[in-house]
Amino acid sequence: MFDVAIVGGGPAGLSAAITLKMRGKSLIWFGSPAMSPKVEKSHRIGNYPGLGVISGEEMNARFRAHAQEMELEMTDKLVTMISRPKDFMLLADNEVFEARAVLLCTGVISTKGFAGEEEYLGRGVSYCATCDGFFYKGKTIAVFCGAKRYEDEVEYLAQMAETVYLYAGYPDCAVALDNVKRLESPIVQVKGGLKMNAVVLKDGTEVPVDGLFCLRGAVAPTSLMPGLETEGAHIVTKRDCSTNVEGCFAAGDCTGAPYQIAKAVGEGNIAAHSILEFLSKK
Amino acid sequence: MFDVAIVGGGPAGLSAAITLKMRGKSLIWFGSPAMSPKVEKSHRIGNYPGLGVISGEEMNARFRAHAQEMELEMTDKLVTMISRPKDFMLLADNEVFEARAVLLCTGVISTKGFAGEEEYLGRGVSYCATCDGFFYKGKTIAVFCGAKRYEDEVEYLAQMAETVYLYAGYPDCAVALDNVKRLESPIVQVKGGLKMNAVVLKDGTEVPVDGLFCLRGAVAPTSLMPGLETEGAHIVTKRDCSTNVEGCFAAGDCTGAPYQIAKAVGEGNIAAHSILEFLSKK
Repeated sequence: MFDVAIVGGGPAGLSAAITLKMRGKSLIWFGSPAMSPKVEKSHRIGNYPGLGVISGEEMNARFRAHAQEMELEMTDKLVTMISRPKDFMLLADNEVFEARAVLLCTGVISTKGFAGEEEYLGRGVSYCATCDGFFYKGKTIAVFCGAKRYEDEVEYLAQMAETVYLYAGYPDCAVALDNVKRLESPIVQVKGGLKMNAVVLKDGTEVPVDGLFCLRGAVAPTSLMPGLETEGAHIVTKRDCSTNVEGCFAAGDCTGAPYQIAKAVGEGNIAAHSILEFLSKK
Repeated sequence: MFDVAIVGGGPAGLSAAITLKMRGKSLIWFGSPAMSPKVEKSHRIGNYPGLGVISGEEMNARFRAHAQEMELEMTDKLVTMISRPKDFMLLADNEVFEARAVLLCTGVISTKGFAGEEEYLGRGVSYCATCDGFFYKGKTIAVFCGAKRYEDEVEYLAQMAETVYLYAGYPDCAVALDNVKRLESPIVQVKGGLKMNAVVLKDGTEVPVDGLFCLRGAVAPTSLMPGLETEGAHIVTKRDCSTNVEGCFAAGDCTGAPYQIAKAVGEGNIAAHSILEFLSKK
């Protein structure tokens, strides 16, 4: 059992991780050890006080160095599901982690979902093979696989389902199983009645399926934690960075604009202090 | 007539000033060209992402350098009154300045301290368990705890220090740890050479310690602006850093705890963006 699970390796997560570590809390920190790809790709950043005008690459390197100095470690396991039977349980790459408090610093998801995807979330659409694969035993499903690292999840789904229609969003997909049929045209829409019953491809073809698994890098916050209050793409937070779920806090771009490093770092700090208070009351 | 008047030269003011300048707004910035005396006197700061573990002096120098790089100028005229006949009028050292929007980053003013407290600030005296507790591992410290809400900070300090001499400024202090010794007589003075080395109690006892943490509530800043809504020591702000006075925003320690550089910088950034929006609507 960890004191805190931080989901997200950008500036907000780093800010919170440093403060929580300095205050002696035990952490599990989920994120890419490369830190923030968004920072990395920024051409130039001038308004983060103390660093002057600096390239995103250089800033990201500073962030990594600071994490190293503090002996902070990250795991690149992808969190796909958070539940709250009593404390928090996080499912990441088929492993379960427990924590007393959770901080979401998941950024904003720029990948636009398929038309109808959100509407049918939980009614045929799933983001988690481990969580939901079981329910598609002997059925027909579609799978969007966004990266090579999810291929074993596709294979797991193929063990469950009778037929898998797979579209891979990258060139060299290696999944080759008898019951996995490759879609030649990308998925663009989810259709159905009360439950989804088909995916529509870009070429107009309609493929009847019982479910669709979207295996992408980022998971929308609502699908990460059922019951979490959101407004559009953003998690609703109070000034202390608390959410409507007790013990769950959020910081950084996922809480709304301005999408700025200074703002993310500030909220990470506030969230860390709110978590300290929450833990001391427990 | 300036677009924005920023009152306060600490990290929140700097963060806002950089962003507003980059966005082409005209500024009058009131503060000490030495930047933040509070930052300057911090012994060591470890939780401002990107700068590693750094002395307050060095951090303040980085802040000054960033301001210089951005060609930001400050005036050390003291603002004593802000009124709002139509736009804002600021009275500073008998001169009047006008601005369309105002940002207050005035910090918090602490209560009257113990004799010698200010003298040894940064040389043994600290106001922040999170910031400095780490540096007293295995040492002997005194703590003045001003309110029940700081008890978890006392407990954190007790985890770090070998021995804590605690005086609580209220009746029902619940801290009970083996290495926390209660002082029966209140602390009245800080003594030492180049660094502090003892606190003196009201009954004349001298207690040798390596440091003193003063955990107090902050005191209300002098009301610069009539009608500004405050709560105790703090200016009441919404998430976008707006106050109840249209066109007046606030950021940093003056809006409430945590009193942290990261939080101040984050709020300065948010306030700058809110001001940009406010000015574009005018």
